[in-house]
Amino acid sequence: MQVTAKDIYSSIEAIRQKSPVVHNITNYVVMNNTANALLAIGASPVMAHAEEEVEEMVNIASALVINIGTLSERWIYSMFKAAHQAKKKGIPVILDPVGSGATSYRTQTARELIDNEPPTIIRGNASEIMALHDDKAKTKGVDSSAAADAAITTAQKLSEKYNCVVCVSGATDYIIEGNQIIKVMNGHPLMTKVTGLGCTATALCGAFAAVEKNYFMATAKTMAVMGIAGEMAAEIAIGPGSMQMLFLDKLYLLKEADIEQHLKIDDL
Amino acid sequence: MQVTAKDIYSSIEAIRQKSPVVHNITNYVVMNNTANALLAIGASPVMAHAEEEVEEMVNIASALVINIGTLSERWIYSMFKAAHQAKKKGIPVILDPVGSGATSYRTQTARELIDNEPPTIIRGNASEIMALHDDKAKTKGVDSSAAADAAITTAQKLSEKYNCVVCVSGATDYIIEGNQIIKVMNGHPLMTKVTGLGCTATALCGAFAAVEKNYFMATAKTMAVMGIAGEMAAEIAIGPGSMQMLFLDKLYLLKEADIEQHLKIDDL
Amino acid sequence: MQVTAKDIYSSIEAIRQKSPVVHNITNYVVMNNTANALLAIGASPVMAHAEEEVEEMVNIASALVINIGTLSERWIYSMFKAAHQAKKKGIPVILDPVGSGATSYRTQTARELIDNEPPTIIRGNASEIMALHDDKAKTKGVDSSAAADAAITTAQKLSEKYNCVVCVSGATDYIIEGNQIIKVMNGHPLMTKVTGLGCTATALCGAFAAVEKNYFMATAKTMAVMGIAGEMAAEIAIGPGSMQMLFLDKLYLLKEADIEQHLKIDDL
Repeated sequence: MQVTAKDIYSSIEAIRQKSPVVHNITNYVVMNNTANALLAIGASPVMAHAEEEVEEMVNIASALVINIGTLSERWIYSMFKAAHQAKKKGIPVILDPVGSGATSYRTQTARELIDNEPPTIIRGNASEIMALHDDKAKTKGVDSSAAADAAITTAQKLSEKYNCVVCVSGATDYIIEGNQIIKVMNGHPLMTKVTGLGCTATALCGAFAAVEKNYFMATAKTMAVMGIAGEMAAEIAIGPGSMQMLFLDKLYLLKEADIEQHLKIDDL
Repeated sequence: MQVTAKDIYSSIEAIRQKSPVVHNITNYVVMNNTANALLAIGASPVMAHAEEEVEEMVNIASALVINIGTLSERWIYSMFKAAHQAKKKGIPVILDPVGSGATSYRTQTARELIDNEPPTIIRGNASEIMALHDDKAKTKGVDSSAAADAAITTAQKLSEKYNCVVCVSGATDYIIEGNQIIKVMNGHPLMTKVTGLGCTATALCGAFAAVEKNYFMATAKTMAVMGIAGEMAAEIAIGPGSMQMLFLDKLYLLKEADIEQHLKIDDL
Repeated sequence: MQVTAKDIYSSIEAIRQKSPVVHNITNYVVMNNTANALLAIGASPVMAHAEEEVEEMVNIASALVINIGTLSERWIYSMFKAAHQAKKKGIPVILDPVGSGATSYRTQTARELIDNEPPTIIRGNASEIMALHDDKAKTKGVDSSAAADAAITTAQKLSEKYNCVVCVSGATDYIIEGNQIIKVMNGHPLMTKVTGLGCTATALCGAFAAVEKNYFMATAKTMAVMGIAGEMAAEIAIGPGSMQMLFLDKLYLLKEADIEQHLKIDDL
């Protein structure tokens, strides 16, 4: 399975043309960033978490993104309700298990969501992904410390058990479906100094999955685009403040030639 | 009724001098942006939504802004309570019916608010305004798709029924009070790629209405200032990230000469 | 007690090396900014407010920051629970009584928190600090209007009664512990035009207190770093939008020589 710059760009063009509605139930910290990133790539972001309206919002959406970064009981209830409706309607559900492994509340919520309403795509860092399956995994805050290798094994188990795509993101991003793996080597260390770029990747998975029914490919394309926009922003950023701003500019302006020039993908 | 650059600038000067407290009950996505825009124009933003404190906060405020972009039961209760107190106290109430038409929860909430505590100013895009009156109006996400013409007719009905100013914003902004209409042609397409600039316009209506008791004029002035700051930012922005930043810079630095040079208003 | 550029920089180096987890229960408006500021200085921010997880999150944290900027009943409950656990565990608790004095809900919440779980450090502007003790203090919104002198007297009383460090911030920042006072004269007026830089100072107190057990010194170092990064950003900012961005860049890039060149401290 090969992912070319041309493939990636054709998905971006599809997003820009169709402007798919991506419904987000996400954390307070990143709502503004992820809405802006979705706008920059060409999608139509909607944020709605009230149990009274999530089903109706799902009904006008082309993808549902669930991010557990700032939880509470009512929101969890809405996440289940929205995920159920999304699966019933047949639109992709993307889960970001932020901080899974850091507290049992997050770990349990993520596991129960996966068990009850298996998502289409799960994206997290190595320790978050490991915590979804391995009780001994440790998380330091919401950053990854566990080795990617162990996380890949967990990701494969999750993918097989729940028939979903799992992305273990980090310096190298691993996109996993069953025993298939695509590695994306794009990205820049300065990206880790901007809050919520992981959450942004998850949100953008929603945009790509809305226009590309091969969700394995959609996830790989998303991670490549994130990494490339990040590299291009880092070339001119002077610190994390300008990085956050320039990332959005680069995402918005991304051309096929940029992708061709930067793409580092290993899709054996 | 004519709106000159001088009139607009004198309102800005009044805001900068008096630094009116604008109390916002607004959505999570735009809280930071709208607080920054209010600071940039010279006002004092306050965000407070707890039912225990909204009345007291209204009592120290010169305007109340209600934005239904991310709803929940408790917040709706606080919105009613705050609006009631604001009307009792005699300060302007500005409503942004974000996503009205997208879900019945939002449409109902907006309609009930308007019915029970008629706001001073309502600002929304064409489909949001239409949804406040017309059951057949459709919203794609929170972006406008309905024709402005139909929205203007709805706006006129709302204005007459509730004795309020209605602003239908879009490429051209229509400010309506009874059968009077002012058109503002300022603005730039890149503004639609930054989340929450509509919400920012609504918040700034609060600042202008705090210093200008002719609310029809206050709304027109706000929309002109939004559009002009947007145009000036877009002249040097390279994408939506820098646009968001530069919009605040331009708003802060706005001079009478800038307004004179850019103002495109049709106030027959 | 003398605070040198070298001392300050050695704390920054400690933060960058240890990357301490700083647990924040903070307001919606500033979550993104404060997370980014903590990342920029080298710490690991975590935001969590659910009563189900705050104790566990405290257990992996090196400091707890409580900010009452957007309150509700459930969050207050979590604040008490988290503060109790932090004191039991022995990590510093930093309180930002945002808007204390503006509504009785905020004033009461702040006072009850201080009474029941005395924080390690309290940081607020003059009117917020005065409201913690003096029933006649008035706040206009969340900005300071009371004279610093009166606030210093209140701060000294609070410091003695609760055995804590109190910082009265403003054009000059006063760091108070018992009858000791350090004055920091760094900072720039443009900082008051960016929402949440006070909240950012409080969050950074968490990072410094995580690596410096002399909390009086930790607070003074924080305020110096805030002011210096602010001055350096203001030198090149063209308005509050670029100021917000450049502040993060400068914080991230801060060198010992920058501190030496800018430090204006009066630590008799």
